[in-house]
Amino acid sequence: MARTYLDYNATAPLRAEARDAMIAAMDVVGNPSSVHGEGRAAKTIVERARAQVAEAVGCKPQEVVFTSGATEAARVLSMRPEGCDVFVQDTAHDALWSHLDLSNVAERPFGPGHTLAMGLANSETGVVSEIPDRLDGQFAYGVRRADYLLLDVTQVVGRIPFSFSWSGADLAICSAHKLGGPKGVGALIVRQGLDIPALATGGGQEMGRRSGTENVIGIVGFGAAAEAAMQDLADGKWQQIEKLRNILESSIEESAKETIFVGKSEKRLPNTSCFASSGWKGETQVMQMDLAGFAISAGSACSSGKVRESRVLRAMGYDAEVAKSAIRVSLGPETTEDEIYRFAETWLKHWNKHRARAA
Amino acid sequence: MARTYLDYNATAPLRAEARDAMIAAMDVVGNPSSVHGEGRAAKTIVERARAQVAEAVGCKPQEVVFTSGATEAARVLSMRPEGCDVFVQDTAHDALWSHLDLSNVAERPFGPGHTLAMGLANSETGVVSEIPDRLDGQFAYGVRRADYLLLDVTQVVGRIPFSFSWSGADLAICSAHKLGGPKGVGALIVRQGLDIPALATGGGQEMGRRSGTENVIGIVGFGAAAEAAMQDLADGKWQQIEKLRNILESSIEESAKETIFVGKSEKRLPNTSCFASSGWKGETQVMQMDLAGFAISAGSACSSGKVRESRVLRAMGYDAEVAKSAIRVSLGPETTEDEIYRFAETWLKHWNKHRARAA
Repeated sequence: MARTYLDYNATAPLRAEARDAMIAAMDVVGNPSSVHGEGRAAKTIVERARAQVAEAVGCKPQEVVFTSGATEAARVLSMRPEGCDVFVQDTAHDALWSHLDLSNVAERPFGPGHTLAMGLANSETGVVSEIPDRLDGQFAYGVRRADYLLLDVTQVVGRIPFSFSWSGADLAICSAHKLGGPKGVGALIVRQGLDIPALATGGGQEMGRRSGTENVIGIVGFGAAAEAAMQDLADGKWQQIEKLRNILESSIEESAKETIFVGKSEKRLPNTSCFASSGWKGETQVMQMDLAGFAISAGSACSSGKVRESRVLRAMGYDAEVAKSAIRVSLGPETTEDEIYRFAETWLKHWNKHRARAA
Repeated sequence: MARTYLDYNATAPLRAEARDAMIAAMDVVGNPSSVHGEGRAAKTIVERARAQVAEAVGCKPQEVVFTSGATEAARVLSMRPEGCDVFVQDTAHDALWSHLDLSNVAERPFGPGHTLAMGLANSETGVVSEIPDRLDGQFAYGVRRADYLLLDVTQVVGRIPFSFSWSGADLAICSAHKLGGPKGVGALIVRQGLDIPALATGGGQEMGRRSGTENVIGIVGFGAAAEAAMQDLADGKWQQIEKLRNILESSIEESAKETIFVGKSEKRLPNTSCFASSGWKGETQVMQMDLAGFAISAGSACSSGKVRESRVLRAMGYDAEVAKSAIRVSLGPETTEDEIYRFAETWLKHWNKHRARAA
């Protein structure tokens, strides 16, 4: 049975452009740190990818520090002197929350000052946050004032227009696999002039900011995917994706009128639909749809198999009942209209069965 | 002009088995943390690779924590409570040395106690160290006593017999690209029962020991390369490599009688030759041989383009003159006898020119 993948916010299929570039990079033998011809060739393709990623993120190439993903990049939040806090947006990803405790004291912090860490688009709901303005040199978050701003743009790059330079942020984190690059590679974006301690120490790679032999094949895939993703965005591909998402929601709403579409009245990513049917557990829906050939999710995939009520939905003010019964359907460039109709039809069939059982 | 790659200790060419496995993995769409079929398929290939790496390292699969390389794995050394030290072998890699300063205090250290960190085989010279015995529960290193032992086996796995279980070590670090896997993936090996703090926090992947979406394609390449490397080892491939290395050294010694072969009287990796011709700078030799079509190195590639006298050779007691004039030639499974003869011939030609100029 042909499968339908509707979980792009967990990870996107590898783009053909990334695949081709990675296969070509497999023939590049050298270590980018080596001074001989093979080493220089490896360095050249890493630097080409850096320029491609910079273009997609809207920053300068020298502001890009390649990492093993957004999670590693988020570690910059732990590098702060005592007395300096991180304020984390309540709906932000666990990777940001995990740095609240001051467990790592940096020798050379980028402080002094407090940092506001926020996800620009939420992975579970697609809701896009407003980027706070810098007022009198500080960022307001409720009653708190931060000196630095870190944006998690993992779900944003290549999906909606974003420019790091225009955002006013000091730091940003992103990952390749959400835009069709390989898993296990990402970047920390560091505003030029901001001095950060090394994410990893050792051989001094990435201009001393992140030691360790570069993931050359993965970085090349990231660059190629970023370029292809930006082309899709320029071609209006995400407007088509938004239309499909809206077809999905109206198809479901037509029959299942009590469905709660989370964040529907707010600015959202074009590809994400998070909806709840009170009393029907999200994890049950995920399993039923999986058996029917559709890959969707309940909550963030990064919770590593842990199935529980959505912390994000609770933070948005929904009750536990709604939070437990929410699923996320996230579309991508390869999603077709036919897949969306079939998904809606199949989901509604199961929804009817659930209603019949519950009645 | 056909190039000859003799810098396997910097990085090895990607093995055909790794290449094939990685290309196949490109079609696996899911995030290993997702519960649907696509996610489970991704998890399955990651777990298969974990078993392959465990087999090569001589440990249990559950002792393998995948990382972005040995450098990231070495970060475990920074996770220690105050008052606990790391003793680092003087010839060890920069990635170990960089953790001497207690800049990161772990919430949940694997201590209390001191840790001895050593490279089992030196990347520059190939010299293999004796694994210290645990006496009265402690490891002796000179007059110091450590409670834990971390072995950097990056240059060892797949080249000489090694078993983590038999070594008595508590921790080990290694990387895929030295044995023909992709760059940017490696592992921290943690003895079962030893509780370590997470290398990275966030989504809780790798049994909570290292958060971040897994580098699925890279991990699969690591597994396939590890399996192929162990097959080569079993087939006696490294005895052939040793013969070629010895041919190289005797060819050079025959004409350039004053050449110093570092560590020649000690136990060495079969593939490594480090030799010095006093007064002829290593970096000059590397450049001349590069122009002549041979990739070799002076010092460790991880020094990221920095060319300087070898710290390792200085630590071994050689004077600055020798340390500055050393080069490393490191062979691998694809090296041919013809390549070795051509290298020796070319090097001797340049050596004669140098002598003529110096005279």
